[in-house]
Amino acid sequence: MSLTVVGSVAFDALETPFGRRERILGGAATHFGLSASFFTQVNAVGVVGGDFGDAEWDVFKRHAINTDDVEVVADGKTFFWSGRYDFDMNTAHTLDTQLNVFETFQPKLSDHSKNADLLFLANIQPALQRQVREQCPDAKFVAMDTMNYWITSAKDELVQTIKGVDCIIINDAEARQLTDEPNIHKAARKIMDFGLKAIVIKRGEYGATLFTQNGYFAAPAYPLESVFDPTGAGDTFAGGFMGYLASQGEITDDVMRRACIYGSVMASFNVEKFGTERVDALDYPEINERFKAFKAMTHFDDIPFERASAA
Amino acid sequence: MSLTVVGSVAFDALETPFGRRERILGGAATHFGLSASFFTQVNAVGVVGGDFGDAEWDVFKRHAINTDDVEVVADGKTFFWSGRYDFDMNTAHTLDTQLNVFETFQPKLSDHSKNADLLFLANIQPALQRQVREQCPDAKFVAMDTMNYWITSAKDELVQTIKGVDCIIINDAEARQLTDEPNIHKAARKIMDFGLKAIVIKRGEYGATLFTQNGYFAAPAYPLESVFDPTGAGDTFAGGFMGYLASQGEITDDVMRRACIYGSVMASFNVEKFGTERVDALDYPEINERFKAFKAMTHFDDIPFERASAA
Repeated sequence: MSLTVVGSVAFDALETPFGRRERILGGAATHFGLSASFFTQVNAVGVVGGDFGDAEWDVFKRHAINTDDVEVVADGKTFFWSGRYDFDMNTAHTLDTQLNVFETFQPKLSDHSKNADLLFLANIQPALQRQVREQCPDAKFVAMDTMNYWITSAKDELVQTIKGVDCIIINDAEARQLTDEPNIHKAARKIMDFGLKAIVIKRGEYGATLFTQNGYFAAPAYPLESVFDPTGAGDTFAGGFMGYLASQGEITDDVMRRACIYGSVMASFNVEKFGTERVDALDYPEINERFKAFKAMTHFDDIPFERASAA
Repeated sequence: MSLTVVGSVAFDALETPFGRRERILGGAATHFGLSASFFTQVNAVGVVGGDFGDAEWDVFKRHAINTDDVEVVADGKTFFWSGRYDFDMNTAHTLDTQLNVFETFQPKLSDHSKNADLLFLANIQPALQRQVREQCPDAKFVAMDTMNYWITSAKDELVQTIKGVDCIIINDAEARQLTDEPNIHKAARKIMDFGLKAIVIKRGEYGATLFTQNGYFAAPAYPLESVFDPTGAGDTFAGGFMGYLASQGEITDDVMRRACIYGSVMASFNVEKFGTERVDALDYPEINERFKAFKAMTHFDDIPFERASAA
């Protein structure tokens, strides 16, 4: 099945304890698209400025991502974000945000993008997300992200948007904030009540949890001794998740479980180098080897305890 | 195999958003012993005052815990701890600590306790833990707990103690503090370098992770919509872990993985009611049913991705 993503394409400037980059390819649709491209055909919908160059387009081309719906505003500048991570690598400190052409972004979907089987609404203004969702009435599975800013400033609108999708992929702080509920399981149930089929809660170094109408699945994070650059990890997770779903014939609970693992696999690679560097260079044997590592690190034998076995 | 635990036996006064208890049975050796008693024969080593009554002794008796080495100081008072949990239930706020007879606790192990195959050193002063460990030279597997207080005030002594055991069971903040290392995987490797066979890092609502010389295992926490009283959850985990190990013929990586799950199972019950109430009333079908639930919530099919399968 094909997959359309709508979201930001950006330049990032990054400082981490391991080094810095002045201007590298970033953005939610970029990280998502790159990750998903390993599993299915991806259409990206976004906007860039005249400063978006061949080197950037080449990354999309290398992964056969359809960029027909990435609008180019020739006299504008691409969205720019600058951030710094300290030693604990958990929190991004924003140094500068220049929305540029992204400020007036109006997603324009070609029929090809509209007709994709799966749709991912990366973190943008909830009203825009809803507008896009309504342009794709035949999509079989629609998922979305959001952020604390919209929960604070546009909650009602956001809830309306959530009610129109099948799945939300957010982090635990956002789930708590959205529901005013400190317990993550209660928070998930409240969000499920908006009429969702699935909720994926990303928990950073603790992994991800999948809530569906029939079940609960806990995926750990890959044990990494150093996180080089966490930028885009959440979108890379979402790309692996949605890309894997698109690669399968049917979206069942079992498929969503494996999709969580593939999302975690892709996110674990993403943080090993700056920006898109690591995922851009990935191959299938690496992906499947890490999938196997997830299996190995979560497996235990299903042997019920019998008191008689005590010596 | 038999199991000896050395640690506190206490009265707790608890306040949580769900209610309060003025004076209930608590203490590390209590929670540990009760949990472990479902899997093996347990010897408890501790000290109580003359105020320790029949109702308390009955809890130990009901679970066939050998209390011959629980010293009674007839004219003294039992260790008393009073704490409060706020709405998020993650942090215990200590309201009062009266060490009483525990202040001068000198563990005295009978030959029966010394000859146990497994030994657990609950959180007490590291020098005392080492003293006990040296009295049990033939123990096949020795594990210990500790706390932030000892890491701050007696680090060298603590490290000496760790070097004499096989396994440490601590929480993630303690692992980070002990090694000055924010990354939990690096922290675990540094602790492993003290010569351990295994490290279990308890991560509260995020589960537990097991590091061994050959592998890594991630166990989630059981998804609980309400945590009633977290007091003793860590010791209950350790009791399930060590008790299960004692119930098995050999301590392999596979056995330690299942032990992590049984530890998580027991801890998940512990927090459902005040103090020892829930674990005291547990039965084997409940334990095995929850073990099965852990299997169900972590299982995914080991199907490598093939690009050809993309539609």
